[in-house]
Amino acid sequence: MTVAIYAGTFDPITNGHIDIATRAARLFDRITIAIAENPYKEPFFALEERLELARKALDGLPNVEVEAYDGLTVDFARKVGAKVMVRGLRMSADFEREFEMAMMNRKLDPDLELICFMASQEYQFLSSSLLKEVASLKGDISCLVPEHVAEAIKRKVVVKE
Amino acid sequence: MTVAIYAGTFDPITNGHIDIATRAARLFDRITIAIAENPYKEPFFALEERLELARKALDGLPNVEVEAYDGLTVDFARKVGAKVMVRGLRMSADFEREFEMAMMNRKLDPDLELICFMASQEYQFLSSSLLKEVASLKGDISCLVPEHVAEAIKRKVVVKE
Amino acid sequence: MTVAIYAGTFDPITNGHIDIATRAARLFDRITIAIAENPYKEPFFALEERLELARKALDGLPNVEVEAYDGLTVDFARKVGAKVMVRGLRMSADFEREFEMAMMNRKLDPDLELICFMASQEYQFLSSSLLKEVASLKGDISCLVPEHVAEAIKRKVVVKE
Amino acid sequence: MTVAIYAGTFDPITNGHIDIATRAARLFDRITIAIAENPYKEPFFALEERLELARKALDGLPNVEVEAYDGLTVDFARKVGAKVMVRGLRMSADFEREFEMAMMNRKLDPDLELICFMASQEYQFLSSSLLKEVASLKGDISCLVPEHVAEAIKRKVVVKE
Amino acid sequence: MTVAIYAGTFDPITNGHIDIATRAARLFDRITIAIAENPYKEPFFALEERLELARKALDGLPNVEVEAYDGLTVDFARKVGAKVMVRGLRMSADFEREFEMAMMNRKLDPDLELICFMASQEYQFLSSSLLKEVASLKGDISCLVPEHVAEAIKRKVVVKE
Amino acid sequence: MTVAIYAGTFDPITNGHIDIATRAARLFDRITIAIAENPYKEPFFALEERLELARKALDGLPNVEVEAYDGLTVDFARKVGAKVMVRGLRMSADFEREFEMAMMNRKLDPDLELICFMASQEYQFLSSSLLKEVASLKGDISCLVPEHVAEAIKRKVVVKE
Repeated sequence: MTVAIYAGTFDPITNGHIDIATRAARLFDRITIAIAENPYKEPFFALEERLELARKALDGLPNVEVEAYDGLTVDFARKVGAKVMVRGLRMSADFEREFEMAMMNRKLDPDLELICFMASQEYQFLSSSLLKEVASLKGDISCLVPEHVAEAIKRKVVVKE
Repeated sequence: MTVAIYAGTFDPITNGHIDIATRAARLFDRITIAIAENPYKEPFFALEERLELARKALDGLPNVEVEAYDGLTVDFARKVGAKVMVRGLRMSADFEREFEMAMMNRKLDPDLELICFMASQEYQFLSSSLLKEVASLKGDISCLVPEHVAEAIKRKVVVKE
Repeated sequence: MTVAIYAGTFDPITNGHIDIATRAARLFDRITIAIAENPYKEPFFALEERLELARKALDGLPNVEVEAYDGLTVDFARKVGAKVMVRGLRMSADFEREFEMAMMNRKLDPDLELICFMASQEYQFLSSSLLKEVASLKGDISCLVPEHVAEAIKRKVVVKE
Repeated sequence: MTVAIYAGTFDPITNGHIDIATRAARLFDRITIAIAENPYKEPFFALEERLELARKALDGLPNVEVEAYDGLTVDFARKVGAKVMVRGLRMSADFEREFEMAMMNRKLDPDLELICFMASQEYQFLSSSLLKEVASLKGDISCLVPEHVAEAIKRKVVVKE
Repeated sequence: MTVAIYAGTFDPITNGHIDIATRAARLFDRITIAIAENPYKEPFFALEERLELARKALDGLPNVEVEAYDGLTVDFARKVGAKVMVRGLRMSADFEREFEMAMMNRKLDPDLELICFMASQEYQFLSSSLLKEVASLKGDISCLVPEHVAEAIKRKVVVKE
Repeated sequence: MTVAIYAGTFDPITNGHIDIATRAARLFDRITIAIAENPYKEPFFALEERLELARKALDGLPNVEVEAYDGLTVDFARKVGAKVMVRGLRMSADFEREFEMAMMNRKLDPDLELICFMASQEYQFLSSSLLKEVASLKGDISCLVPEHVAEAIKRKVVVKE
């Protein structure tokens, strides 16, 4: 049985993340969506909210589970028995950073295999940070996230004002 | 009549910005320089100062006006009747970010056309952030900004010490 | 009246080119699609065919005309009275080459303004060379070109075998 | 059972290819190394030689087989029952081309999943074309290919003189 | 006698920096490692610690000295009589920023020659910021820095918790 | 005494090459401009012409000599006693190729140090291939090459017609 981990801050989960998770779930037996507890920058949504939004969004995928973690991703991967780490790659990605992290992770755990899925064309230009920037200026981002996430963003923006 | 908008933080306006504005002013009937009120990071100059520096710098262009805005750029574009959004593109630009914003803006307002001017060769490596970094270390940046902007920077650096 | 030129080999014209031409035709009074007679590499379609395919594809745009040229693009631009040169920019473009050509063209004719339109999201990854490669292996590229171009490609591939 | 295809010209197979094939063979049940019969440019080694060099190099991997193909890669993938296409990604790769091909392949066969492995650090700068260029100038490339490939290259270089 | 300056924050010095310093020390008569006193972001190690870690790491190179500076790098270069500024270039570098800084420095002091060494293959993906991120999550980074730096990092991480 | 080699096809030598050679000649005791005899693609100028054009262009630099070579650059470097290989780096360079070659050269001769000079701003977008393309279409490239090179190009273009 091949277990994969798909780690990130998921702040919040977008249609782009769901696309990658869905495709990975077809290839591997079990996928753990690993939500980093302590991202470097202040998150938009609290950890509990991010977990809940992701769980609801991935509800229909029986072999996908969502969990929080802190510490090194490779350590959490080992804990859940993952032998594969999944990354989504967008043309507008920061490849330098991707390669730096990949090479670092291989040093930290040579047995964890990193594989990249290329984002579907409609999500090639969807970044979480731009999404939040637009949402906080009350732009309509409902076509880029599930409905319950769009609503959570709207409520959050009102609260933050 | 074709109205164009050229939006940014203009913190402060540089010779690179003036070059793009001047060239755009030759192509379109009216240009609104739109200065974002609330940039993400703390600005070097306050909004009022940025407006004043830009107005003085673009004084000689009769079909160019300088205005402040907040909220989404596409909303302000609609308000001033712009059908074109102008961007300056430098070889050392962050193309990924440029494309992400362009694609997001087209989702937000498909009728607003985005066009890019390539920076003139002498401004290809001129970024506002590096300019401020050098200026705050008292480097001479007078060849990269108009005289009144160079003086405003000098006064500001003294005050910040 | 502002005349623009949109130059290339158009070998053959694709939906991506049509998208750019259509958007440029909304902004400028007249657009000349300038098809280079002698591209460096052997073209897939002869000049006459490329002209015919482009003319049929752009038939519905009254202010767009298609013409062949040889020699420098800036010279042809001057001949048709163009004050603007239009380029389509894709995220997967060769930006280095784009900037080199732009800077060279400004040296050759400082009065010709170059502006770039960013390709629409669905054409961001559409290159003429990959299109021809796939078509010559009998892949279905009918969603990327107008119907009459798809048919012309099919006929050409059969002939070349 | 998950079958993967790893397609290319393998002209010749390098340690970089072997690294990717070995890692993919750990993740998937069967891997078909698919060697393109008619690459665009004249190959260094004939198809039969490329097959033989690859077969010998991958001899120790029981679930890997080497086959020739022509036509579209997605068609051959379907023929061998592959549901996954494997690519090796190097920092010095041509990402634009990679994304263009990936998006094109998804159009041609949305059911074939493309995944990328990042090259190991020691093979990040190993390209087949540079390898052949150096070898043909009699540079020592023995640390970058298996021994039998190094010898085949040496013999070939002598013959071509 | 040719004096070179190799400036940065060295927060902390890594094996990648030592590699560049060692190679530069073979080419030039004297090298000054110039550690910037006031980096923009809050440093991980205080200036005194950074100086001490670097001095110990470069102890074996008789023509290399380590000094702190503030203000413009070009001004400090002039002060120590440097006619060359050394940079290490990694494939995963931010080339845009490198070129912007290089062009700015040439404006500030046209007589200071900037030359780049390419990082050795094993340090191509080693960035100080990723190193600190991993170290602060208690990942083992001992193969990327000298032993005394690894220990200093460990002590610092404990203190910061 | 430090000897440096600056290798390439120099087809023909441009102001950009002269700029790099002049700056390198200030740093090192002797520079050998090494002109590759057998470039991969058919050259515009024959080897003898390229040697002559380069010699005349670099006439004023007493510590610079121009020589032809074939075979591996690292072998020729050893022959002339060079311990440094010089490269000019442009923002519009093909960094991937630069790094691949640099890493390959270090494998072939770890004792040959490669250093890069960044092109001066006015030559950042000057590539030999674009220069020849424009010249062969009779564009005026006289500001990008020395006078005797401009004349040689003009004569060559007439002959090739």
